[in-house]
Amino acid sequence: MFTSPDAIPATYPVGIFDSGVGGLTIAAAIRRSMPDERLLYLGDVARQPYGTKSPRTVTRYAVQAAEFLVEKGIKALVVACNTASAVALDAIAERFPHLPVLGVVEAGADGAAKASADGRIVVAATEGTCRSQAYERAIARRREGARVRCVPCPLFVALAEEGLTDGPIVDSVARHYLGSLFDGSEAGDCLVLGCTHFPLLAPALARLAGPDVTLVDCAEATASMLVRRLAGREAPPGGGGLQLISTDAPERFARMVGKLFPALGPAPEVELADL
Amino acid sequence: MFTSPDAIPATYPVGIFDSGVGGLTIAAAIRRSMPDERLLYLGDVARQPYGTKSPRTVTRYAVQAAEFLVEKGIKALVVACNTASAVALDAIAERFPHLPVLGVVEAGADGAAKASADGRIVVAATEGTCRSQAYERAIARRREGARVRCVPCPLFVALAEEGLTDGPIVDSVARHYLGSLFDGSEAGDCLVLGCTHFPLLAPALARLAGPDVTLVDCAEATASMLVRRLAGREAPPGGGGLQLISTDAPERFARMVGKLFPALGPAPEVELADL
Repeated sequence: MFTSPDAIPATYPVGIFDSGVGGLTIAAAIRRSMPDERLLYLGDVARQPYGTKSPRTVTRYAVQAAEFLVEKGIKALVVACNTASAVALDAIAERFPHLPVLGVVEAGADGAAKASADGRIVVAATEGTCRSQAYERAIARRREGARVRCVPCPLFVALAEEGLTDGPIVDSVARHYLGSLFDGSEAGDCLVLGCTHFPLLAPALARLAGPDVTLVDCAEATASMLVRRLAGREAPPGGGGLQLISTDAPERFARMVGKLFPALGPAPEVELADL
Repeated sequence: MFTSPDAIPATYPVGIFDSGVGGLTIAAAIRRSMPDERLLYLGDVARQPYGTKSPRTVTRYAVQAAEFLVEKGIKALVVACNTASAVALDAIAERFPHLPVLGVVEAGADGAAKASADGRIVVAATEGTCRSQAYERAIARRREGARVRCVPCPLFVALAEEGLTDGPIVDSVARHYLGSLFDGSEAGDCLVLGCTHFPLLAPALARLAGPDVTLVDCAEATASMLVRRLAGREAPPGGGGLQLISTDAPERFARMVGKLFPALGPAPEVELADL
């Protein structure tokens, strides 16, 4: 283990993990802003979803995923799962004191605090993220007096995982969860996509929220935060790439990646890992 | 370990497991037909859903769940998860040769073979169950020339888990998966609810399929099969009861049980187990 972030070679990859494929929205955003970085992505699909599980269990899984990536050799770790960020970020940072560890919740809260006009912020997230109140706390630290409403939207995860990202079913589920939050004097002026799957549903959610509401995509916010954290320790040009690891059913994982993230190329190779 | 089914005391409970709360549809059906039996129900929610995972992983989880219940002392084991029944029933039966082991797939296939008028059988199930082709094989053994179409309906699981069991969202998701299968000359005449969650959506599915289609509820079919298997070894009168065990978040488990199965009583106690 390294004794300072600067001791870790700049050519090491950035480790990213999520409970499934959703965190690839973040990997894709990082590739757009830092195309020379190598990315090592772990999807813990054997134990997904994290969003409905207890903090104790999510923390155990998240620390195991982090350990796995650290053993492979990484120069920074992105916790690309909102639920794991919300409940396990401190435990991971304590376990690896010299590794830069970034969570999507902090990045999303940052984006929301800047984007919201009047501080009426709606966060669409998983049950676990909402119950943790991590967004409420992270936004309060950045913007006094903000009114944050966190809404658990578990079906969005299932819809995105199945590739059902737009159309009448998505519209009716979005209305079910969020229909009442963008009307009247207390209407939200900012919608945080507080789960890595939700950017896949962005067009439908933007339609529902209306043209006056700013959508905050945690993927873009996390990529910006990583650019700042890696300043001076960027990888040399020409070395970029994305390596995929799954804790179960690598063929299914590859199929889903191909379907949801065509920009990542056809039929990506996926390695199987046992955590 | 006992050396024959008859050596196991009749007062021992019946063990039931599923990946989540869905299998309680089966526990409820068993309670209706055998009210004197004690039931020991394990929901492996820490690792749910099983339906999207590989056969290897599901088998490992299912054998662990079975071992846990056998150690508590049970007189029969009901694999109340269609996915686990489809891929892991043989492995469990081999591991415990003297324990009566029943799976919902065999029971559902039995019900379908009897209920279908012309052998045009539609099975709504999880991805794992469909991929295993367990229903196709089990129905073929019972009814020659049957035409079985197995349709993966993963969103039904998420809808049921959330208590969204009827209404416009359920209707549109049901049309998405099954809309084309009950029209024309090849229209199904029988719909098997091939996942323990799906009986919760039965009214919406019956509406979609139409009045000429018979719905086969695996829960009822499994209860009937258990009555036959326990003949002569029934529990003495007056001893019934249901004990709930969850592998994660017992409060959430209790809330879902209360919401989905009000007949089981308010605020049931749930024990936490680490598998």
